[in-house]
Amino acid sequence: MRKLNQLILGACTLLALACSPQPKQEQLVSAYGTPYHWEQGTIVVDTPERPAGQESAIGLTAPKLKVVRVGFVGLGMRGPGAVERFTHIPGVQIVALCDYEQERAENCQKYLKAASLPKAAIYSGAEGYKELCQREDIDLVYIATDWDHHFPVAKCALENGKHAAIEVPSAMDLKQCWELIDLSEKTRKHCMILENCCYDWFEMNTLNMAQNGVFGEVLRAQGAYIHNLDDFWPYYWKNGKEDKLGWRLRYNMEHRGDVYATHGLGPVAQALDIHRGDRMTTLVAMDTKSVHGKELVEKASGEKCENFLNGDHTTTLIRTANGKVIEIQHNVMNPQPYNRLYQLTGTKGFANKYPVEGYAVDAAQMKASGVQPKVDNLSSHGFMPDAEMKALVEKYQHPILKKYGEMAKEVGGHGGMDFIMDSRLVYCLQNGLPLDMDVYDLAEWCCLAELGALSMDNNCAAVQFPDFTRGHWNDVKGFKHAFASPEDEAEAEKAAKEATAKLKEQGAKEWAAEK
Amino acid sequence: MRKLNQLILGACTLLALACSPQPKQEQLVSAYGTPYHWEQGTIVVDTPERPAGQESAIGLTAPKLKVVRVGFVGLGMRGPGAVERFTHIPGVQIVALCDYEQERAENCQKYLKAASLPKAAIYSGAEGYKELCQREDIDLVYIATDWDHHFPVAKCALENGKHAAIEVPSAMDLKQCWELIDLSEKTRKHCMILENCCYDWFEMNTLNMAQNGVFGEVLRAQGAYIHNLDDFWPYYWKNGKEDKLGWRLRYNMEHRGDVYATHGLGPVAQALDIHRGDRMTTLVAMDTKSVHGKELVEKASGEKCENFLNGDHTTTLIRTANGKVIEIQHNVMNPQPYNRLYQLTGTKGFANKYPVEGYAVDAAQMKASGVQPKVDNLSSHGFMPDAEMKALVEKYQHPILKKYGEMAKEVGGHGGMDFIMDSRLVYCLQNGLPLDMDVYDLAEWCCLAELGALSMDNNCAAVQFPDFTRGHWNDVKGFKHAFASPEDEAEAEKAAKEATAKLKEQGAKEWAAEK
Repeated sequence: MRKLNQLILGACTLLALACSPQPKQEQLVSAYGTPYHWEQGTIVVDTPERPAGQESAIGLTAPKLKVVRVGFVGLGMRGPGAVERFTHIPGVQIVALCDYEQERAENCQKYLKAASLPKAAIYSGAEGYKELCQREDIDLVYIATDWDHHFPVAKCALENGKHAAIEVPSAMDLKQCWELIDLSEKTRKHCMILENCCYDWFEMNTLNMAQNGVFGEVLRAQGAYIHNLDDFWPYYWKNGKEDKLGWRLRYNMEHRGDVYATHGLGPVAQALDIHRGDRMTTLVAMDTKSVHGKELVEKASGEKCENFLNGDHTTTLIRTANGKVIEIQHNVMNPQPYNRLYQLTGTKGFANKYPVEGYAVDAAQMKASGVQPKVDNLSSHGFMPDAEMKALVEKYQHPILKKYGEMAKEVGGHGGMDFIMDSRLVYCLQNGLPLDMDVYDLAEWCCLAELGALSMDNNCAAVQFPDFTRGHWNDVKGFKHAFASPEDEAEAEKAAKEATAKLKEQGAKEWAAEK
Repeated sequence: MRKLNQLILGACTLLALACSPQPKQEQLVSAYGTPYHWEQGTIVVDTPERPAGQESAIGLTAPKLKVVRVGFVGLGMRGPGAVERFTHIPGVQIVALCDYEQERAENCQKYLKAASLPKAAIYSGAEGYKELCQREDIDLVYIATDWDHHFPVAKCALENGKHAAIEVPSAMDLKQCWELIDLSEKTRKHCMILENCCYDWFEMNTLNMAQNGVFGEVLRAQGAYIHNLDDFWPYYWKNGKEDKLGWRLRYNMEHRGDVYATHGLGPVAQALDIHRGDRMTTLVAMDTKSVHGKELVEKASGEKCENFLNGDHTTTLIRTANGKVIEIQHNVMNPQPYNRLYQLTGTKGFANKYPVEGYAVDAAQMKASGVQPKVDNLSSHGFMPDAEMKALVEKYQHPILKKYGEMAKEVGGHGGMDFIMDSRLVYCLQNGLPLDMDVYDLAEWCCLAELGALSMDNNCAAVQFPDFTRGHWNDVKGFKHAFASPEDEAEAEKAAKEATAKLKEQGAKEWAAEK
């Protein structure tokens, strides 16, 4: 009888294993380290409970700041440009500059000198950012380090009661996403993803059109980072002589999935009101094999590369709770024109940015959008003529572009969008408004790498998105940029200009004393 | 003790159900009717064994035909144009014309009259095609009926020992794919999918470039059918007064998945040597909800439409055994410019057709491709200038375009590609060569609808492709169009022209007698 039981049990165990959907039990932790399980053929990652005494950070605001006191960490590729841009924004004090290499930090004083702003304190070395974050006279830590240091610096900043603004990707895996969410919810400090592509001209005007119904209901959106980096690989920071690859190539070698999804996903997530009435629910990803990645490693290292985890081209499909679809692509390997694939497909109209910017709506929808077509047979079967497009864009020029557009083009930074992004960040902090992008945007836009790898490591299985808002994705109806009342805005601007004038006086003296 | 056993068994049964990846047991037959099961998180459809005494049809040839005797079935939208085109191809005898409505069949005699070719026999009614297929004097049945009748007519043709050429989609589900494969393998008759987009200019020249290594190794390919059909829906045949929708809208309403994938998939499958050294292994599909489909049904029927199965936009991702990725999209609902998304991404170059035709390769690759760049800084970061593109296209103009291109533009049919397709079909039959597209292409290109629906009905799960060649996908290395020796070709052409001359004499008499 015992034998029988053993037989039954044995058979059952086999059955349990046989019908188990995952390839191997030991794969129940993702390559990035997150526990997961299968539910009816879909992979589900565990969602940590919101710790007690911690509230949602949806619509988070912080007290107004007359002057935004900034510390910059990471002054290699992207950092110096940010410092320079901030010297053009009224009501900003650049308090500290930090880089692993002291020389790179010192070198950025030149931007302050050029603007006759007071010198900044310099921090360097592996621990420099910690001292910077501990200063009492800093409100915002602006992080432009290599990807590996985005999270540790941001964590340190938030733990020290500072707002954090982080270059992309701002979190490299789900664990970092959740930690930043918990820190922002707990400290009530902002944790912003510096997604500059949300501020590019076509994207902003098109977002404004979408929010005003020009395209009807937007059903599908596309985005991408397609940029052959062959001219750039050699210039990513190398950690000493032994480091032949540089951090970015190594990161791609060691990580599967779309590791740079936010330029593509950010702008369309805003157009689809993600966690403002809709949410991303299901993801599937598929990549090509790696060919050029291996070639790059072999060229740089002189050794055979057997295993380069990031495929040359990665495609991710995302379904939302409201039945929309988002497609995101990543290719930094193969020769082809730069392309962010920005596209919105709506029930009444269509917008596409690459390789040619264009809109398609018919005459009726054009009129309904408040623009009288200049041609009598305007059809949605082709992109509208230049005159129509010009009229439509003028009608729906985004208010943020009206405010910052001209100056942005003077100051520059990816054609100006970087300056608009920085200006909006400072504007919202000075006026005590919610930032354009919150910590949930950060998590949603950055989680594609790990979730995509999880899908592809399981033969492109469907993966369920965690709800990073933990139940609050439908509290706000529709994404909107926050604006202060004209009176408050004017008051803040006045204070900002006065503060900057004072700083310039002080700076002029300091730099004169240098001579 | 028995209680204990029952408990153990009960627990085991629960365990078995709990860990079972599919939502419900009763869903183990796809919406289209194919049995499937789960293997480690992937959906696997059953593959029928090859019946005894039946061989692979890879590279299938049939005895040369001096004159190709054709019967046409389905003379509504696409059929009449095909009849007209065939009157321009030497060595063709149009023996019979068949449509459900006799008048539409009779009406096509005008094309024979215009070419002073002998009158064709007329068949009509629901059973007309059966009589046509039973004729002894027909070699090829050319099928351009509505989608629901593609398969039954093709089956009847093959069972009666005729070659079958079927408009797209040539099979609507896996069962039809397998039946056509078995029939072609058993009867050794051709069963061709009439995928005209394989014969469009940009696609053919680009295929020639790909086959000659201009793009290095092609890692990723795209295709689509994006065409707002609002102007066409009212004109699809309706089966009597009660039929408010017409067959095509009804088919979309009743079927999820990419039901019209072949225009996008065909050309790129040829570029990726599918079942000529590579094969499609894994599919995932994701669709938007249906909005416009429902609107169309409600407008046509005057009744509320609760359930329209085909989403407005469907995206399918396919991975191949060699680590390539194919993306296919379908949207016949939303306003936007026509787009087949044709694109090849290679390790050394890039080709893209919509919205602007362009190629991107650098100077070194251009030289390696046998074209001296006219600019000294040719970079792959942008599309090459017109002069470069012109030179590249001239160098790689496809031999089939050289042969048929000019006449095709005169005769017309989707800009000429229809005529090239028909001419190649007749050429291969007259010369006893394998057709450009075999029954496995037909199955591979048409199976996306059911496999995609299976994926989407299971929350976008991964679905394993059946190997329609049943083990022979790697026998042939590289897709190639077949050509006869110059001598054989000349002989066949001579015979064809003589035969047509005779037919025109006979036809002239017949039509004179009419007066």
